[in-house]
Order: sequence, then structure tokens, then C-alpha cells
Amino acid sequence: MAKRQLKLGANLNGVGNSISFWRHPSVPINASVSLDFYKEQAKIAEKGKFDLLFIADGLYINEKSNPHFLNRFEPLTLLSALASVTSHIGLVGTLSTSYSEPFTVARQFASIDQLSGGRAGWNVVTSPLEGSALNFGKGEHPDHALRYEIAEEHLSVVKGLWDSWEDDAFVGDKAGGVFFDPSKMHPLNHKGAFFAVQGPLNVARSRQGYPVVFQAGSSEPGKQLAAKSADAVYTAPETIEEAKAFYQDVKVRAAAYGRNPDHIVIMPSLGPIVGRTQEEAERKYEEIAELVAIDQALLYLGRYFEHYDFSQFPLDEPFPDLGDLGQNSFRSTTDKIKREAKEQGLTLRQVALRASTPRTGFIGTPEAVADQIQQWFEEGAADGFNVRTVVPNGLADFVELVVPILQERGIFRKDYEGGTLRSHLGLPVPQNRYAKTAEQV
Amino acid sequence: MAKRQLKLGANLNGVGNSISFWRHPSVPINASVSLDFYKEQAKIAEKGKFDLLFIADGLYINEKSNPHFLNRFEPLTLLSALASVTSHIGLVGTLSTSYSEPFTVARQFASIDQLSGGRAGWNVVTSPLEGSALNFGKGEHPDHALRYEIAEEHLSVVKGLWDSWEDDAFVGDKAGGVFFDPSKMHPLNHKGAFFAVQGPLNVARSRQGYPVVFQAGSSEPGKQLAAKSADAVYTAPETIEEAKAFYQDVKVRAAAYGRNPDHIVIMPSLGPIVGRTQEEAERKYEEIAELVAIDQALLYLGRYFEHYDFSQFPLDEPFPDLGDLGQNSFRSTTDKIKREAKEQGLTLRQVALRASTPRTGFIGTPEAVADQIQQWFEEGAADGFNVRTVVPNGLADFVELVVPILQERGIFRKDYEGGTLRSHLGLPVPQNRYAKTAEQV
Repeated sequence: MAKRQLKLGANLNGVGNSISFWRHPSVPINASVSLDFYKEQAKIAEKGKFDLLFIADGLYINEKSNPHFLNRFEPLTLLSALASVTSHIGLVGTLSTSYSEPFTVARQFASIDQLSGGRAGWNVVTSPLEGSALNFGKGEHPDHALRYEIAEEHLSVVKGLWDSWEDDAFVGDKAGGVFFDPSKMHPLNHKGAFFAVQGPLNVARSRQGYPVVFQAGSSEPGKQLAAKSADAVYTAPETIEEAKAFYQDVKVRAAAYGRNPDHIVIMPSLGPIVGRTQEEAERKYEEIAELVAIDQALLYLGRYFEHYDFSQFPLDEPFPDLGDLGQNSFRSTTDKIKREAKEQGLTLRQVALRASTPRTGFIGTPEAVADQIQQWFEEGAADGFNVRTVVPNGLADFVELVVPILQERGIFRKDYEGGTLRSHLGLPVPQNRYAKTAEQV
Repeated sequence: MAKRQLKLGANLNGVGNSISFWRHPSVPINASVSLDFYKEQAKIAEKGKFDLLFIADGLYINEKSNPHFLNRFEPLTLLSALASVTSHIGLVGTLSTSYSEPFTVARQFASIDQLSGGRAGWNVVTSPLEGSALNFGKGEHPDHALRYEIAEEHLSVVKGLWDSWEDDAFVGDKAGGVFFDPSKMHPLNHKGAFFAVQGPLNVARSRQGYPVVFQAGSSEPGKQLAAKSADAVYTAPETIEEAKAFYQDVKVRAAAYGRNPDHIVIMPSLGPIVGRTQEEAERKYEEIAELVAIDQALLYLGRYFEHYDFSQFPLDEPFPDLGDLGQNSFRSTTDKIKREAKEQGLTLRQVALRASTPRTGFIGTPEAVADQIQQWFEEGAADGFNVRTVVPNGLADFVELVVPILQERGIFRKDYEGGTLRSHLGLPVPQNRYAKTAEQV
């Protein structure tokens, strides 16, 4: 395939990313814990030849949490269940390095990678929610910088464990009684600042070597971790300018680590709203936005700011000055909310409604949405997109109406060519660190 | 159904429980990491109307480990994958309380329970292998008594988290905009000797309330934990007398905790070898036993004794005196090996071959095997069995040849009657601890 190809992920979220999406008549009330719902969405995405499914996560809820967060599948078990009812699509799930053991993480993702024939991916996060610490008996939630130090070591341990077995370690000589070659089994013997893990892992590498590593934080240490160690980046820019700056930034950082910038795939979030006309698309947005009560919108906004109570402020006056609040939670998001409110002179009501039902700008006819996607793709703002469902039937509409246009324009596959997630994303199979190269042998 | 019904589990083990089973021509060399293999076995078990699939586990390997242990699926991901390709059979997996976080364990099992429509089960173990500590940076492996103290608290936390949401908490009133009733969401606020977990869990209870809890240790604290908190017990007696004593012991202990003894299901391990004649069955056993080289058998035996090197002793002299060795690993197994060697005057070679290719005594014609099963079942030695595959095609033979006899005799179901694992096992749905009874309302 000569021409550079767009990447597409389907970010599946049960009863929805927006807080009132569940109220729409078409949304199954139990979608977040319905295997049938996820199977159907997965089949739509695979029919659309998407690269991957993407399942986000969080480790703390309270009575103010988004409905979808209260009662949902755990990502790794969900992806495993989807592995056996899909054949080509990648399976990417979020898991936090702040509240997990590298041995268990390495094992479960390696297992999904084997179950799926090389289609697993791990979206590395550090858990923005302070309350997470309360569910893991760890005392204080580590601060932002410390979380990224932990994440870097955690990820390096997991990758080390994934290399425990060289690809030809399992000989399987039945007549000779030799199951494996002990010289190709490698303990890790890691002893670091945060983790001590001997290994070896009790799962071998898969067809794609090991799972694709996503990174999903846009802060400084987040970008640095991505540039150094990730295969792909999930991000949420609101404008093409912002996206281009981020894209360039991460690619340059990756190159500085001696990496091929093509081997780190930047996939912004995309919430497309497609209508036969621009007006029809706008009506679809309004229909969803109107489901949100303003008190709900304030709660939703508060979640980004450590569950701050915004109801104490007048709704139609300028967004209040919050000082440093939000610095230690979803930092890149809270910084952006504050900056835009100031720059655009937004009221609290406007900020809250935008936050609770985001408008990404990809709202219009199939051609118009395809144009925007192509522009972002060709102008260096994105290598692809993670498509969220923001209106009823959103993924199905996108697959039916927009994907064929992208295929027609030659920037998106008409069929799967490889069987692994790495092959879809154009990523090389990582060499086992212990394997001798031809010259060494 | 008036007559007491036998319970059957299928203990699936990829390339096999015995160390050389993988050498048989019929065994796929990659069985332990082949989803196709497990799917096929699961379908056979479900065709046989089995109550459950059972996936064992371990957290430490080295070059002396059993082949199946070196490279296998992680149980929870495997069971999740099987959830979406089965419809009735229970899905039980082993997970250690010594090296896991209660919040994560509660979540992943609850998620499997939702994915499967109420078919999940957790086999609680404490990790017998010393080396496990090396993979989790925890310093010393906790000793046997401490591991069970941890297990008891861990399990109580997990059960508490499983009750986070009352069954009618999710109102889903679209018109009124009420997703859930906050008065039916319950944080746990646990602070104990080993764990501090606030909750609530972000998964609701399933159709069966919560996952079935298996317990798999036969030591004193193991039996005590089972009697107090487990729904089912996995055990490995070698004689009917031993099984009866264990059965009676656990049922009496459960009654002492005020429990209905019928609500703790005792399921010994069973490795049936079925032939058209007794001789054919014996030949099947010999065919497998002969695949084991004696040095492999010594390594296998050593695994129970902290990887003790038995090759230093003469093969055909009495089994050596080992003192306290093995007390802190697989205690019930090592005690039994020592006792039987002494009582029966076995040589090291005999002990090693028996250990590496166990004979459970259930070897013979379909009628003879069915007779033994019925005897154990009716004489108070077992409520059912966990069937291991010890000869090629073992599970399929059992389903085809033995199950119909058990059905004919009226002691095993001809079809599934309920949809959940608890309903198969005759266990009640546990009441949510926070739900008000009719009198309280």
C-alpha cells in the first residue's frame, strides 16, 4: 500500500461519554454492562475496517460520577470477551500504572494478545482521580510528576516481562521430550525505585511481538513518556491548530529519542455528528445537548476539578477564577478550560454546557466530515482518529456514510491486510531484547 | 427437581496436568495458549451439561516448572473470552489473595459475572509457591498461617464491594433524568489489618448476586475459610475414605457457622480414564505414564517441595526422610506424599511416577466409572467432581460415555434448567447486606 493510510479507532462507552446521552430513547439503559451492546458496536466497527476498539477506564466513583462510570465492564475482561467474537480489529484498553502490579498487567495484556492472535493494546494512564487511592489502601494519591515516574518504570518492567521468551523458545519436540529451550527463557531481575520483579512472565510473545502501547496524557511528562515509549497516542485537541502543535511536538520528541516518527501514531478523539444536511447534523447535536440539565452540567464540570462545587457561583457571570485547582487531576483539560474561558469571555453556564456536551467541530454532511478528517490527516494534525459515539447511531452512521468516502479517496483501507494491531497501525514487530541478530549468531 | 443432583466441572489445562501429556501425538503443542483449543473443550463440557469450567493458576515459574505453567492464558482473560462463546456453563478461575488488590479482584470477577449473565466463580487461593513474592516486589512470601489471615480479610472486602449497589439501585428514568438512586449506592469504608478500601465498586451485582466463591486449600485454615465463606470447595482426595472424612469435616464446620451444609458444594478432582474394557482403560493410563522420563518425574515431585533436588537419592530405595520440608508450600499434598510413602513402603521411583501421573482409581468401563462416581456421590464423599483431562480425548470420552449413564440413573441433569452458576449448583442468590427485608421496610 503506497499511500499513507488513516487509522481509525472506535471508543466504546456504553451509556455514553456525555452525561445525559443515556436519556435518549434509543440508548439501552444497561448498555455499559451489556455484552450484546458491545458485541454489536464491535461488529459495526469491524465491518467499517477500523483499526481498533478503545475502552477507557477509571478507578474511583462517587454519587457525582458520570452515569457510564458507575456501573460498567472492566476493560480487560470486556476486551477478552470481544476477542472471541471478532477476527481482525485491535483491542485496546486503559489500565493505570498507579494502582497495578507490572507482573499482573504484563500477564493479562499478553494473555489478551494471545487470545486475539496479536490484537491487544494497552492505553497507559496514571489515574487522574485523587479518590483512586482510597480504593487501593495506598495512602496519598501520588502527585502528577511522581505518577509519571512510576509509570515510566512500570511500563519498562512490563515490556521487559513481555520479552521473557524468545520467539523460538518453545521447541515442542515430542519425540525428544524437549518442550522448550531454557537458554531462550529470560528472567528480568528488575530492581528499581518503585518495583522489584524477577520474572520470567508465564506467557510467550504473540504474533505481533507484544501489545501496542498507547499513552493518553497530554501534559509535559505525558508527552515525554509517549515520545520515549509509546506506539500510539490518544489525545483530545479541540482545534486543528492545537492538534498540529501537539502532533509536531510529539513527533519531534520521538525523533530526539532516535525513533522513527512514523512509529508513533497520533490519534485524536473525534465525536462526529453526521447528517444529510448541515442542519440535520446540528439538530442531532441540539437533541443531545438538550438532554443535559444545568445542575448536571455543573457536576460534570466539577469532576475535572476534584469534584469542585460550581453551584455556588452565578450561572451567567464570567467563569470564576479557580487558582491552582485542577493542577493535580486532569491537568491538561483543566488548564484548557480555564484558558478558553478567559480568552473567549465565557460564562459558567457556557463552560459547563460545552464541557458536558462537547462540540468537536466535526458536525455536518458526510462529505464535510470526510473533508475535515482528510484535512487534519494531510496537514499534520493526526495520523487517525478515535471515534466516539456522541449521538445515537453515531458509529453506525460514520461507518455507513463517512468511511466509504474515505475509502474512495484512497486514504482508508477497503479491507484488512494484516491480522495484528501492529500491522494495521503500520508498526514494526518489536525485536526481543535477548534475541541475537544475524551478525551476532 | 426432587432428586439430589451431581455437580460436574471441567478442569481445563491446555497441554496437560501431567508433565508429559504434551508429548502425546494428539495434544496440540500450543494448547495452553490456543483459544480454539479452549473453545472446543468448553463446547464439549457445555454439550455435556457441565456446571462449570475451572481454570487453575500460578504466579511463579522457573526452568523446572510443568510445561503447561510456562506459557498459558491468564485465567480471567481466558474465562472472559469463553463467556461470549458459551451460554450456560459456569466460568470459575483461580486468583490469589496474596498478590492482588481486592478492588481489582472484585471488579474483574464482577465484570465477568456481568459479561456472562451470572456465570462467574472465583477460586480463592493463597499462592503456595515461595517464588511468587519475587514477581510482586513484596519481600518475603507470607507464611501459611499469615496467607490465610490475609485471604480471609481479602475475601470479606471483595464480598463487601460486590454489595456496593442494591439490586434496584439503577432506576433509569429517562423522562425524569434519574439514572440511579443514591441511597442504594453503598461505600464499604473498610479499614483492616491488611487492606483499606473505600468503595463503592463500579460494577453492579449480577443475576446471581455475585460470583460463586470456591476455595481450594485442604489445610486446617483452608477448611476453616471454606466452611466460613466459600460456596464450593475444590479438593484432591485419593481414596473414598479420605474424601468422606474431608466432606464430613467441612460440612460440620459450615453448620457450626450457622450455614446450611447443602450450600457448600464439595467437588473433588477426578481424572477419569474410560475404556470399552478395563484393559483398554489401563492401556490408556500406561500410554500416558510411559511418556514421563524418570528425571522429569523427580523434577515434578520436587516442585511440591520448594524445588527440592531428589536426583541425589537412589531411585529404588525407600523414599527419603525430608523432615519439615514442604510445610510452607503445598502442605496438604506434601504431608500426604510423606505419609503414603511411609505407610506403603514406597521407593523414590514409585513416589515420583505416582506424583507425575496420578492414578485416581477412576479407571475402567463407562459403567464402572459411573458406579464409582455414584458411590462417592451417594455415600457422602462428594457433591460432584472437577473432571481433569488425563488421557487424550478424556473430556469428550467422559461426556459421550459416562454422562449419559449418570443421566439415565437420574443423578445428573439432562439439560440446563437455570441460567446462572448459582442455579446450577443449587446455591441461593446471596442477599445484599444493605437491602431491607420485607419486615424492615
